[in-house]
Amino acid sequence: MAQEHVIHIEGNLAVPEVVVMRLPQYLRVLEALAEEGTEVVSSEQLGLRIETTPAQIRKDFSYFGKFGKQGRGYSVRYLLAELRHILKLDGEWKVGLVGVGRLGRAILSYQGFAPAGFKVVAAFDSDSRQIGQMVGGIMVQPMHRIQEVIQGEGIQIGIVAVPAADVQRVVDRLVECNVRAIVNYAPVAVHTPQNVKVRNVDPVLALQSMTFYLP
Amino acid sequence: MAQEHVIHIEGNLAVPEVVVMRLPQYLRVLEALAEEGTEVVSSEQLGLRIETTPAQIRKDFSYFGKFGKQGRGYSVRYLLAELRHILKLDGEWKVGLVGVGRLGRAILSYQGFAPAGFKVVAAFDSDSRQIGQMVGGIMVQPMHRIQEVIQGEGIQIGIVAVPAADVQRVVDRLVECNVRAIVNYAPVAVHTPQNVKVRNVDPVLALQSMTFYLP
Repeated sequence: MAQEHVIHIEGNLAVPEVVVMRLPQYLRVLEALAEEGTEVVSSEQLGLRIETTPAQIRKDFSYFGKFGKQGRGYSVRYLLAELRHILKLDGEWKVGLVGVGRLGRAILSYQGFAPAGFKVVAAFDSDSRQIGQMVGGIMVQPMHRIQEVIQGEGIQIGIVAVPAADVQRVVDRLVECNVRAIVNYAPVAVHTPQNVKVRNVDPVLALQSMTFYLP
Repeated sequence: MAQEHVIHIEGNLAVPEVVVMRLPQYLRVLEALAEEGTEVVSSEQLGLRIETTPAQIRKDFSYFGKFGKQGRGYSVRYLLAELRHILKLDGEWKVGLVGVGRLGRAILSYQGFAPAGFKVVAAFDSDSRQIGQMVGGIMVQPMHRIQEVIQGEGIQIGIVAVPAADVQRVVDRLVECNVRAIVNYAPVAVHTPQNVKVRNVDPVLALQSMTFYLP
């Protein structure tokens, strides 16, 4: 355990972000393999499933120590547990949603968060017509209560589903409330301090990264 | 123009996909800069906005030829036009949506596609309660009409917003209809032939790539 801990801390400092971005994709493929009953997987097989090279996979894993023996493949169950541990996904993270419009409501009713270890425990909106409504079992709170609720609930992650014009203001507010990880659904780039991570969940970026390949 | 064309074809063969994935993010930052009235931008300034290094930006751009002179910065307007051209975003792409549940409806009412050059022109569902309904100005079609509509409309891009269990079947159908670029909203990895691009728009992958950094 001590050994593992050292490796993890090293990793945290030195692992390139592109590698960290790939780990959840490995996790997903491994989850599918485990469901199919596969016990051992080679980096070649993983590479085929995730559309990358075996060498890339071995290099990515090497940041975190040894996960398998050369030529023997990886134990799916062990690799799953290790990746979950590295990504800090062995517990449950509390999430706060800002913006309860059409998109926000779809997010609140989304069934995919809980199995992955994320629980949306609070929702906020500045529109008085939304405030006080129950959506997906959660009562929509006014924005002026955000700090109190985030600290009271121990929320560490924010999801922002507000119109593009409001995103930066909302993100700034979340950062003030000590939220250090934010998912932004609006098609705008946001500025945050270096110690805050933002991921854009954005169909336009996805579309624009594929047209290059179209005839 | 001939020169540019050659560079583009070269690029198409040799540009790493991670670079192509970053170009839309550069585009977004440049659009914001243009709106702010900025005319010239350095790779240092771009790097700050996009959270990468100036060297990375210069290297990314180098795949497509020279966009600026050393030390002079880039013309925002020129770079915007070039990036749009490289990414084939100077026209309009027609998009078909499959799945008109809560998420699909949010997608159909999303205002961000059209300004970015994507027009959702058709929607499909297998649920008879959805078929024939008008959503966001589009009439929901039955799945058995998908090939006819996709070919008739000249749709080249698909958005899939169906439950996880149905995703692979829907993606296979789109591939049969000659769709070569697919956005998948469900938290599952899909298999496609090598010449088909798939991007997952997935809040869970986004969340799982940030928890690594949380205390």
